[in-house]
Amino acid sequence: MLPQRVAEEIETNRQRYVAELTDFLRIPSVSTDSEYAENTRQSAEWVVNKLKKLGFQTELRETAGHPVVCGHLVSDASLPTLLIYGHYDVQPPDPLDEWVTPPFSPDIRDGYIYARGATDNKGQCLTYFEAMEAILAVSGKLPLNVKVLVEGEEEIGSPNLGPFLQANLDELKTDVIAISDGSQFAPDIPAITYGLRGLSYLEVGVQGPRFDLHSGSFGGLVANPVQVLSEMLAQLKNEDGTVAIPNFYDDVLELDPRERQEMAALSVDEVELRKYLGVDELVGEPDRSIVERKTARPTLDVNGIWGGFAGEGAKTIIPARAGAKVSMRLVPYQRAATINELFKNFVYSIAPPGVEIQISEMHGSDPVLVERDQPAIQAAARAIEFGFGKYPLFIREGGSIPIVGLFQEELGCKSILLMGWGSPDDGAHSPNERFSLEDFHRGILSAAALFYALEESFEA
Amino acid sequence: MLPQRVAEEIETNRQRYVAELTDFLRIPSVSTDSEYAENTRQSAEWVVNKLKKLGFQTELRETAGHPVVCGHLVSDASLPTLLIYGHYDVQPPDPLDEWVTPPFSPDIRDGYIYARGATDNKGQCLTYFEAMEAILAVSGKLPLNVKVLVEGEEEIGSPNLGPFLQANLDELKTDVIAISDGSQFAPDIPAITYGLRGLSYLEVGVQGPRFDLHSGSFGGLVANPVQVLSEMLAQLKNEDGTVAIPNFYDDVLELDPRERQEMAALSVDEVELRKYLGVDELVGEPDRSIVERKTARPTLDVNGIWGGFAGEGAKTIIPARAGAKVSMRLVPYQRAATINELFKNFVYSIAPPGVEIQISEMHGSDPVLVERDQPAIQAAARAIEFGFGKYPLFIREGGSIPIVGLFQEELGCKSILLMGWGSPDDGAHSPNERFSLEDFHRGILSAAALFYALEESFEA
Repeated sequence: MLPQRVAEEIETNRQRYVAELTDFLRIPSVSTDSEYAENTRQSAEWVVNKLKKLGFQTELRETAGHPVVCGHLVSDASLPTLLIYGHYDVQPPDPLDEWVTPPFSPDIRDGYIYARGATDNKGQCLTYFEAMEAILAVSGKLPLNVKVLVEGEEEIGSPNLGPFLQANLDELKTDVIAISDGSQFAPDIPAITYGLRGLSYLEVGVQGPRFDLHSGSFGGLVANPVQVLSEMLAQLKNEDGTVAIPNFYDDVLELDPRERQEMAALSVDEVELRKYLGVDELVGEPDRSIVERKTARPTLDVNGIWGGFAGEGAKTIIPARAGAKVSMRLVPYQRAATINELFKNFVYSIAPPGVEIQISEMHGSDPVLVERDQPAIQAAARAIEFGFGKYPLFIREGGSIPIVGLFQEELGCKSILLMGWGSPDDGAHSPNERFSLEDFHRGILSAAALFYALEESFEA
Repeated sequence: MLPQRVAEEIETNRQRYVAELTDFLRIPSVSTDSEYAENTRQSAEWVVNKLKKLGFQTELRETAGHPVVCGHLVSDASLPTLLIYGHYDVQPPDPLDEWVTPPFSPDIRDGYIYARGATDNKGQCLTYFEAMEAILAVSGKLPLNVKVLVEGEEEIGSPNLGPFLQANLDELKTDVIAISDGSQFAPDIPAITYGLRGLSYLEVGVQGPRFDLHSGSFGGLVANPVQVLSEMLAQLKNEDGTVAIPNFYDDVLELDPRERQEMAALSVDEVELRKYLGVDELVGEPDRSIVERKTARPTLDVNGIWGGFAGEGAKTIIPARAGAKVSMRLVPYQRAATINELFKNFVYSIAPPGVEIQISEMHGSDPVLVERDQPAIQAAARAIEFGFGKYPLFIREGGSIPIVGLFQEELGCKSILLMGWGSPDDGAHSPNERFSLEDFHRGILSAAALFYALEESFEA
């Protein structure tokens, strides 16, 4: 599948690829924080420069938020087109004091590179560019026409990507899309993801008195916003861990027999998992396997809460206000818009007197299900088998990649390859995020093989 | 009661008293902030100098924190002794930008003096000194022996006052204690406080996974510490606003018929109160008046909560930990130590699997009830009637004054006079703290009358 000389070229350049990744990871492109706006743009320019070196026609494209990097390399107009998607922005690095080495000073330890963005998504995105570099170095041209779309707002929900796609439908037209933002199922167990959970993310604000009150003078008279918020959050879940919002499960698709069988076969070492997480017990819906619970069942989590005095010592106040961020992972065929409405209606309906509730919708996305039995998916499976030496599992993922729904809807593309080279324990979104250098290498091999495998599948 | 000549002396010197108060208020004696340590000591020295001018034997007494001012003026060894308590420290002035004039540049507007410490407690404390000055100017001696105890750590919880009392029991022995740190019930409605609520203050920590987790990858598997904390906090209260901790009410003393009658007679303008607080509805225990709820019934309030991501935007994590500060106002005969135990036992008992709970005790104090029908209290009432032209109400206060419990326990003194000249809307602890010059004057008259009224009550 992959010409031997390309594989050799990749082997030869391993160190240089790592150096380039290190360079990319030094840029603190935290898209959610306006303080890093300059760095975020710098990260986009890094991608533009890299693509230009490969011969891409490329530039920064402005949006209402962070710019999109768009690139084109036409090999032969008669060939099919692959669009590679990635993102150059990263999650905030907090809590900073839990990092062993600083998040934007990449450090290599025991075969891993540690930095914010290492696995999510700079390292994985870069594998495609290095793969193309190797192919171009050896054969001068790619087996397919390639489009690249690297955005800077994935970590804030891609608010401007939809409008960008809509405005550039012809330019972005493609036969297959490879999404570089995934992971293996487990270390050394590569996978292709055919299902993604969606997301409803809302913020609930509770306003009580117009200023913090002395709890001695007013305790017993005034509804306490933190207490009210706690009581409302408590009512969102049932004792068995299921979500208590009425009609929440109405549109949930039950697993088909093949899926249940596959999921049952995915043995998860619960003892190891508990140890990794540092918890003495896992929780969740009864009668559902771990894999089902984390990939094919909807959930609700409070992502953050605040209110009143959180400093050292004691301050005896009734806080004026409190708030929480709450998100729900959705599964086919739930819809984010519907779930947002159900959530709001329920929370408003349980709000007690004496406070004012305000709910705002943050970003959301619909869940995704990709048809598994299509040629492009099977080509991707062969490419992974080449890079990792193992045929991939077919799995559903617990996370959400909002842009996949966008691609389906806006570009009308049904051949979406969701696969990643990192490992679930890479700590994406956590302190000490990392990416195995071995996975980085196998990723470059798989990405290179993918170009040839797709070419073959189209020829067939 | 008060000799006419003393009243005239007080009238004659009104302007000078205000000038002295202005001088005292210029000193930024913020005890909680080490940057002001020098000023805090300067404030103590101001008190020493004032007392020395009155003929007191007095000095600064060092503690582990800010010094205590201790003074003695023996009139006649056979007379009973009054101990006057006050504090020379003040609350931090933040938020500074909300002050109309700077907090330590006293400004007189519309009959009020505006400055941090004006009412709490420099202005009120000074009334006793000016009262003694007038008596001494007219008659050369006081009708009682007087001890003065002015501390510099009231605003940080008087951490060193207990040890100081214990170390100086004989020196501080007294028949009556006047606490200068109170207020009227409402503007022009003076009061004597015979009950104070106590306080149990605890912090609850919930530890879940050992780091923040991606809610997509792990949502549905792991107990969420914020969710757990919310559910536990929700279980602390019943739907009717009462506290749900088992045995919490066991030691609560029911109001006697006279108290219920008095409290019922204290009309609170609920519409005005709601407007002031900015809430559309008051809450609390059913079948209890507003005054009962805020002064004579125990309460539970969450003072602060934190956990996970509270920044701008959306972060999809399961937080590693969450925490809350919870305090309970206690009433006679609840005990802080007992309530702490009940709280801890209950919270530990409802903790679900998958998390670790840690509870730490912050400061606390027992509630106080002073016997109303004793001669010293009645003497104080007559003194207030003289100064304010109105017989005082007898009330309970919703807040806690930990030093009162200390005086009862350490000095064994049961005659504790809790009364103040300021108004609840003076803005103690708030920006634009003020003290009415009329209240300052009436306070000096009342304080002067108190010496004579107590003398008469002891003679009787």
